[in-house]
Amino acid sequence: MVNRNKIHPLLIDPVTVRDGVRGIERPKSFMESVSEDPEVLKEISNHHIVSARQFSKETVVQLCRLAAHYETTPTLIHKPLSDKIMISAFSEPSTRTRFSFESAWSRLGGNVMSMTDPGTTGLAKGESMEDIAEMFSNYGDVMVLRSSDDEMIYSILEYLRIPVVNAGNGIDEHPTQALSDLYTILKWRPDLSFDSPESKIKIGIIGTPGKMRTVRSLLLLLSYFHSAIDEIIIINSEEGVFSEGQAEELKHSGLSLRIEKNLEQILPELDVIYINSIAWVGDTYETLAGNLKLHAASPLKKDAIILHPLARGPELDTSLDQTEHNWYFAQARGAVFLRMALLTCILQKIDQVADVQI
Amino acid sequence: MVNRNKIHPLLIDPVTVRDGVRGIERPKSFMESVSEDPEVLKEISNHHIVSARQFSKETVVQLCRLAAHYETTPTLIHKPLSDKIMISAFSEPSTRTRFSFESAWSRLGGNVMSMTDPGTTGLAKGESMEDIAEMFSNYGDVMVLRSSDDEMIYSILEYLRIPVVNAGNGIDEHPTQALSDLYTILKWRPDLSFDSPESKIKIGIIGTPGKMRTVRSLLLLLSYFHSAIDEIIIINSEEGVFSEGQAEELKHSGLSLRIEKNLEQILPELDVIYINSIAWVGDTYETLAGNLKLHAASPLKKDAIILHPLARGPELDTSLDQTEHNWYFAQARGAVFLRMALLTCILQKIDQVADVQI
Amino acid sequence: MVNRNKIHPLLIDPVTVRDGVRGIERPKSFMESVSEDPEVLKEISNHHIVSARQFSKETVVQLCRLAAHYETTPTLIHKPLSDKIMISAFSEPSTRTRFSFESAWSRLGGNVMSMTDPGTTGLAKGESMEDIAEMFSNYGDVMVLRSSDDEMIYSILEYLRIPVVNAGNGIDEHPTQALSDLYTILKWRPDLSFDSPESKIKIGIIGTPGKMRTVRSLLLLLSYFHSAIDEIIIINSEEGVFSEGQAEELKHSGLSLRIEKNLEQILPELDVIYINSIAWVGDTYETLAGNLKLHAASPLKKDAIILHPLARGPELDTSLDQTEHNWYFAQARGAVFLRMALLTCILQKIDQVADVQI
Repeated sequence: MVNRNKIHPLLIDPVTVRDGVRGIERPKSFMESVSEDPEVLKEISNHHIVSARQFSKETVVQLCRLAAHYETTPTLIHKPLSDKIMISAFSEPSTRTRFSFESAWSRLGGNVMSMTDPGTTGLAKGESMEDIAEMFSNYGDVMVLRSSDDEMIYSILEYLRIPVVNAGNGIDEHPTQALSDLYTILKWRPDLSFDSPESKIKIGIIGTPGKMRTVRSLLLLLSYFHSAIDEIIIINSEEGVFSEGQAEELKHSGLSLRIEKNLEQILPELDVIYINSIAWVGDTYETLAGNLKLHAASPLKKDAIILHPLARGPELDTSLDQTEHNWYFAQARGAVFLRMALLTCILQKIDQVADVQI
Repeated sequence: MVNRNKIHPLLIDPVTVRDGVRGIERPKSFMESVSEDPEVLKEISNHHIVSARQFSKETVVQLCRLAAHYETTPTLIHKPLSDKIMISAFSEPSTRTRFSFESAWSRLGGNVMSMTDPGTTGLAKGESMEDIAEMFSNYGDVMVLRSSDDEMIYSILEYLRIPVVNAGNGIDEHPTQALSDLYTILKWRPDLSFDSPESKIKIGIIGTPGKMRTVRSLLLLLSYFHSAIDEIIIINSEEGVFSEGQAEELKHSGLSLRIEKNLEQILPELDVIYINSIAWVGDTYETLAGNLKLHAASPLKKDAIILHPLARGPELDTSLDQTEHNWYFAQARGAVFLRMALLTCILQKIDQVADVQI
Repeated sequence: MVNRNKIHPLLIDPVTVRDGVRGIERPKSFMESVSEDPEVLKEISNHHIVSARQFSKETVVQLCRLAAHYETTPTLIHKPLSDKIMISAFSEPSTRTRFSFESAWSRLGGNVMSMTDPGTTGLAKGESMEDIAEMFSNYGDVMVLRSSDDEMIYSILEYLRIPVVNAGNGIDEHPTQALSDLYTILKWRPDLSFDSPESKIKIGIIGTPGKMRTVRSLLLLLSYFHSAIDEIIIINSEEGVFSEGQAEELKHSGLSLRIEKNLEQILPELDVIYINSIAWVGDTYETLAGNLKLHAASPLKKDAIILHPLARGPELDTSLDQTEHNWYFAQARGAVFLRMALLTCILQKIDQVADVQI
């Protein structure tokens, strides 16, 4: 044990809050640049949220605007989800996503019932999906489901009488992560939500769209913003980057896509770099080839921003944390507010939080 | 993975709520047919609830009436248990019962502290029952206990300064399940609560009263309603159907009881069929003989209702789910409202929720 | 199974509340004997709480006074921490401390996110402390951390943007337990908070200050009250009772300290006896020599009080439970109110609960 017979210097002063991209200036500017349109959000009222295909550009923009409203409102006077119950069912370990959803729900006034150990539940005992759905429909107001199996969420929603939100289903989708990514991008450049943005951007994605659910959902959401995107470059040196039909669907939606192998060569062109090295395959995961790494000495464009869904491995060096390229911490923070916005809409409380009400 | 490069049809429309026995018509009719009598409920104020022997017919009827009040009130304006704390201690896995209690408590405005892993608690470390009871009395306002041991709840209540509710103690009792069963029966036939019901009913119980805690508690509650029950038939082909003195106690309370071995032969006579194939014995369970099964082709009386405490095994075929005999889903749903009613009474908040207050 | 075909006698009457040292008379007297001084409590607003070295005598007394305010106020009308979020992260099993913190937080209106299984968290997956701190800062309003490692809390607080409270860090400190100990002592003898108490007391500590975090923090707090303490006697027959520099620091702070080996011989002199036989060493614990035991026949001074942080082993015999020496149950109960007081101050809500507001 350290001999510390005197008070530690960090205990003398109050806890300090560092500002920067985590402050309220960015979400405030974004709110001011976009008009409120609560009607658009009613399109997802009482809907299951499973796929990024369920949204429109307008819905994404308004969800991000509502997230910005929450990010700039430190304490809610009226709690729209007072004593509503979220059932949080995670059959894969994920403190980060689970806490983000539970924190969002709690800040809206609701209560949480968590199931983190599938061994103690019907999900493991072999109960039918109908019986499990019946149980959850009786006990909660919304369900958040993470599973390593692609199909479970589609099976359960057939029987649910409450909305379910996909918190990651196998290698298929992770739509709330992608919405958080878009929220980050729009805080950085609100004009990208306009029909004619000030300039188009180039986005680089270090990852495997065919196997990474975060990337799959992100690409689907980005397709709504194709008029603001010059090109998306997938940086990947492996075979089978896309799943069957994936590239075709995205191109059909208006995205310009290409694959590059050399990270260092393409980096100086990119405005946004999204990096994720973990792809879930069944119950385990594989990591991307180890030469795709970002660090403070990487040849980044001056104003480029880096996004990462976290938790990170060696692919994203901590030397970047104190640079202006670090938007991944803002992205993690924004995820709570984006989920607050989404849950408010699903639970049909949008009238209670629209600007005009406040 | 399924290739699903387009939106799933079930994601297009809002979540639908199926009505029927799950609607509010039945609880509303029941409420209207029974007068409110809050004084009767004060008899269980601040009491431990361990055995079905603690109630009277009047208390059971009024608890069910209060449950119906909650079932017909989608959102409580006043939360009677605001920030009260339930300690939920389950030393047997049971998502269903645990979530039902926690959901009931949350809907009343309270907070929950859960203990689902006995390995992390004093219950496992061999602390004395007095010390554990002292701890729980300091930290919570009510305790809900599930244990595989019959005696633990009786040991701990000697020392508790807060009420404890039995959520299943070994093979002894499960009184809140039995109250939920009665609530279901009274929603189906409110007249059974009258001194002179329109007609008496025949109840069949597929199970072993001597070994199944749900059945033990149910029979005790049914004995209060003996004037509405023509006969109870236990359907069982094994030895030792009753525990010592059990049949005598029930007959002394006014019930007419007999045992039958042939399910198909007795089914056409029955108005209510209660089925449960799992009996807990020590730390494990045994299932009943496999020939006692219900399915859509079983020779059921036209208006007969089926109850099952769930989770189910093969003894209750899913072919019955879409029939009018399916009252087991209504039973599961009603359990939340019944527990809300019971907890309101124990915590002495009955004055705040009586009809006259609303 | 016990044959219990009749109602158990303990189920007939309501739950009884035993009074005595658990009643509200003691905290009320203490409140009346000390003037309120909320300004002193603002010194810990928005501070990490890691070491007993962070307090002053005035802060300790005012924290105890606020704890007494909560102990004498059965139901809070205004909940100062409504929907604030506590992240409770325990990498060592501890139902007692965890529930005490969570109960305190809930009673103040807040919500809790618990992490009891380090295997499901980044703490185990080898994420950097900065990333973990970033995550918690986004999702919660305060963090409570228990770890078997001395250093973790000092590493994480460098990066946190929310306050962290030390709920036990290895063998280093456990300041909230020590504050609860002081609260118990001041309820017993409010005059010990005065500059000139009615009489000075002798305190015996059965334990190893060098290895027991509860004792380490307690001694630091007691040093603020040196003018009320005649002498502190450590009862211990082993080598290495103190850690390096520990005795010197305490003597320098004004405490008079000595070590004795014979418990029976010293007992008749002591006004307060603090006993704890468990010392955590790394991931496991060792118990003190087994001859240091207290029981009803021990030669205790007539008015002596016994404190124990619980859970207890054989060193504290249950024969003492029904005696006037038993202040360890009052100590456990008071810990909830003391933590309510501390959390109120850290979260900067002291203005909302000061007497003048009520």
